Amino acid sequence: MPQDWTALASGKKASQQAAIPKEWLLFNPPSLDTQDLTEFPDTCGLLTEEDIQITTSDTETLLSKLASGEWSSLKVTTAFYKRAIIAQQLTNCLTEIFVERALARAVELDDYLKNNGKPVGPLHGLPISLKDQINVKGIESCMGYVSWIGRKADNNAVLVDILESAGAVPFVKTNIPQTLMWPETFNHVFGRTCNPHNRSLTSGGSSGGEGALVALRGSPVGVGSDIGGSIRIPSAFCGTYGLRPSYGRVPYAGCVNSMEGQDSVPSVLGPLSNDVAGIKHFMKAVIDAKPWLKDPLAVRKRWNEEEYNLIDHGYGKNLCFAILWDDGDTVPHPPILRGLETVKKALEVAGHHVIDWKPLKHIEIYETLRDIWGAGAEEDYNAVAILSGEPVISTMIPEEQSALSASEWFRPTEGASAYQLWQVQKKKRDLRQEYLRYWEETAAITGTGRPVDAIISPVAPYAAPPHGMNKSANYTMVWNLLDYAALVIPVSKVDETIDAPKPRKEFYNDADKTHWESYNPETYKNAPVAVQVIGRTLEEEAVIAMSELVDKALKSSKGI
Amino acid sequence: MPQDWTALASGKKASQQAAIPKEWLLFNPPSLDTQDLTEFPDTCGLLTEEDIQITTSDTETLLSKLASGEWSSLKVTTAFYKRAIIAQQLTNCLTEIFVERALARAVELDDYLKNNGKPVGPLHGLPISLKDQINVKGIESCMGYVSWIGRKADNNAVLVDILESAGAVPFVKTNIPQTLMWPETFNHVFGRTCNPHNRSLTSGGSSGGEGALVALRGSPVGVGSDIGGSIRIPSAFCGTYGLRPSYGRVPYAGCVNSMEGQDSVPSVLGPLSNDVAGIKHFMKAVIDAKPWLKDPLAVRKRWNEEEYNLIDHGYGKNLCFAILWDDGDTVPHPPILRGLETVKKALEVAGHHVIDWKPLKHIEIYETLRDIWGAGAEEDYNAVAILSGEPVISTMIPEEQSALSASEWFRPTEGASAYQLWQVQKKKRDLRQEYLRYWEETAAITGTGRPVDAIISPVAPYAAPPHGMNKSANYTMVWNLLDYAALVIPVSKVDETIDAPKPRKEFYNDADKTHWESYNPETYKNAPVAVQVIGRTLEEEAVIAMSELVDKALKSSKGI
Repeated sequence: MPQDWTALASGKKASQQAAIPKEWLLFNPPSLDTQDLTEFPDTCGLLTEEDIQITTSDTETLLSKLASGEWSSLKVTTAFYKRAIIAQQLTNCLTEIFVERALARAVELDDYLKNNGKPVGPLHGLPISLKDQINVKGIESCMGYVSWIGRKADNNAVLVDILESAGAVPFVKTNIPQTLMWPETFNHVFGRTCNPHNRSLTSGGSSGGEGALVALRGSPVGVGSDIGGSIRIPSAFCGTYGLRPSYGRVPYAGCVNSMEGQDSVPSVLGPLSNDVAGIKHFMKAVIDAKPWLKDPLAVRKRWNEEEYNLIDHGYGKNLCFAILWDDGDTVPHPPILRGLETVKKALEVAGHHVIDWKPLKHIEIYETLRDIWGAGAEEDYNAVAILSGEPVISTMIPEEQSALSASEWFRPTEGASAYQLWQVQKKKRDLRQEYLRYWEETAAITGTGRPVDAIISPVAPYAAPPHGMNKSANYTMVWNLLDYAALVIPVSKVDETIDAPKPRKEFYNDADKTHWESYNPETYKNAPVAVQVIGRTLEEEAVIAMSELVDKALKSSKGI
Repeated sequence: MPQDWTALASGKKASQQAAIPKEWLLFNPPSLDTQDLTEFPDTCGLLTEEDIQITTSDTETLLSKLASGEWSSLKVTTAFYKRAIIAQQLTNCLTEIFVERALARAVELDDYLKNNGKPVGPLHGLPISLKDQINVKGIESCMGYVSWIGRKADNNAVLVDILESAGAVPFVKTNIPQTLMWPETFNHVFGRTCNPHNRSLTSGGSSGGEGALVALRGSPVGVGSDIGGSIRIPSAFCGTYGLRPSYGRVPYAGCVNSMEGQDSVPSVLGPLSNDVAGIKHFMKAVIDAKPWLKDPLAVRKRWNEEEYNLIDHGYGKNLCFAILWDDGDTVPHPPILRGLETVKKALEVAGHHVIDWKPLKHIEIYETLRDIWGAGAEEDYNAVAILSGEPVISTMIPEEQSALSASEWFRPTEGASAYQLWQVQKKKRDLRQEYLRYWEETAAITGTGRPVDAIISPVAPYAAPPHGMNKSANYTMVWNLLDYAALVIPVSKVDETIDAPKPRKEFYNDADKTHWESYNPETYKNAPVAVQVIGRTLEEEAVIAMSELVDKALKSSKGI
């Protein structure tokens, strides 16, 4: 039997804490009854006026001031690093902290700009945070598994090489759940990440560290991964923008992962940011670097400016959006429905047409996806966990954290045969075929001559719930099976006066009734409300452009 | 127990025979000791001078005369149909025959051109043959399984819809092996397809019907499928051009298949033709039709004219090709090595640079691919065969045809678990990563500043062997696992005087020695010799353009 796993975990946590420069430790942390942490960084006194100006700038401003040298990368990276460390002390969002190395890299970039009179690339000088599983040479990626503590990466992930060539500064790694297969963020090594808008709520997962960090403006652009919603759920719960790209649009090679070899519905990497511009600059820089020459699974499709100009969508004039109000299984809580209403009105004011999207076989899609993952998941988790003796986590509820009962939201089916897996994968293919045909057939009802341009959907049937209570990823998973590009846009926040509980008489099922009646605005106080803008497979360019339209319409409706 | 399967099979074969118009039956078939059948169609008396002129025209001529109306589609389709029926009587290459329907479609196209003054699309009036598994509404796709006889397709495959929109005329379906997982062509329903250059040799498989038909110019463009070489092997063995595109470049939806749900190394559809132009026009027409709007697995990548103009390959000047002389396991027979030498000299004369390609872990790649297929293959085959009671074929050797011993070239592993399959798929991913890096690193040795532009490889370690003797698809399978686009180009034919056996002293292994010493020019008399031009994943445009260069260099070296 190996060394006691709890001792290994505490040792790792202690060395993480030791990596924080003393002068960045908070002397005045908010009291435990302060739930909303979002104002704290600007007021705690650790950040200078300039630090605050930098970290609250939009992405266009950051990139242009970095490229011109008006702001050095050292200055920008230092400001974001300080803020990231504040975020860590508030929400426990980080895993790896490597200040000296990141600042040294920033200085190199500043020297390059000074000596060559031009930036290194399109992301010159920009600090970028990385989900723990993304390898950076010489740094650990233990991914919350005790048994992987101490394993330093031999090489950068392909994406890290590309980001560095584009001029970016990888500067922190962020927290995840054990196995990555949870829509919350807790593991035995780094513990739990909480929601910056209300610390009694979950940050979501599995890219929960990124969600909390970016929301607190501790990083201008972060990279998460998404196999069933793991970028979009933290984005929505924490109030950031976040893109789930199609399979293979962003190179994944060189990351650690769980369930490796499961290549039927694979995980994808994608960006989180505080504006759509952050998403766009990240995607364009990565694709322009021809990732297919470094990762065999990256799709050889150049950034298509015509598609970004919406050549397939009437050049962006008079689009037809369709709103998925619910999935036919669980009606979203009042704040989420209000968010969809807000988007609908804003789009109509902006001259677009909005119709309803009726779900097609969503419940079958959920079950099919669970069967694909479940076919080998348990054997996969145990193979790693057993090495240290740590238990495989079976619930995200804090007080039941070490219980070993079956997972509530995801059910591994031990011992499925390869042939059985093929049968489920065949079903998946048929569902994708049906859904595509269904979408194409909407050309008959949009009034534009085209099928629906994009679907607007909830990201979850609730705003960020209390820790341990995020028991479904259905509203995001459906688009992973279909491999549609999906971009999360923040819309609003739960408001106790507007978002009062409402009576409803008919329910899809008992769980729907329980879910609806459990709503209480006090529980979700201050939690962000968001939507997803969903387009077709490999249509990232158009989804980004259509999200810009939605975002602009929303801002315009709020008078921003 | 269902009806006696042999009776069902003979009934189907009889109705196939009955579908041939009486006036196209041969009254003077070649004697059984005539091995080379290639001269027969032009001399048998069934074809008019104009039929011969049409069926021996190149693709550019056919398309331009059809588009202008100089040749009606009725005339062209009739000529090819007659010739296809001759090919059927010579090589047994067809499955479904539907003359009236095809000619009616041709007349519709002629009317359209007459009434509208313009062609329907880029393939206006062109007859196209289809491998049996490609569904045409109302026509059977029994795929050589007795239990599927009588099942008429409810819908066209997506590709058939697209080809029809482009103006093509689907006119015959072609023979395959039972299960599709053999590199030869034999099944219990339609029997065996032989090689038109030497009927004692195999046509290859699994698209062996297409190979024989196109080689006899019974079809200007045929569609095959390729999971391990099934387009390229028949192309090479029968002397046609043939492209194995990357996963998802040509829509597969709506076809029948074996091992459905195995989506890790999937089968792909692609064209066979008698010139590169036939390949190019087919691919461009299909991609321009935006197949991703009809098949969710079709890649959203528009035809890229810049890539066709070799933007990634110095615009086609002074390329560097690399020749794979052998795979480190089995050295090809003398005629194949001569073919590679011929290509090398022709390319050098044309001003290109040619270096050697050393294989990287090819044997591991073969084993990994067999393990992926094998994980569920046996259960898949039995599930269909059992319905009629026909045996699953275990050898392609004629006199042992009904033996039930284990397959010699492909070994199903019954009962693999899904988790075990994931482990092999992970290995596959790592092999793809290694191969990509290896290819990129050749930039250091090409002298062009770029990595090797394309690999030139044998298609098999021999020319078409006698029936039952094609026991390996290694030289093609390797590129399926890597998902590289590969185009077969005919180079020469086995020549008894030039291609004498040669002594060799060192061998990779016993099988290599046996294989080398078994060579005998008499056995392979008249068999075509070909090479594959191999490019990167989703690089169809460049692979076609580079194949045009290779083909031109070869023709120029022959004084054509």
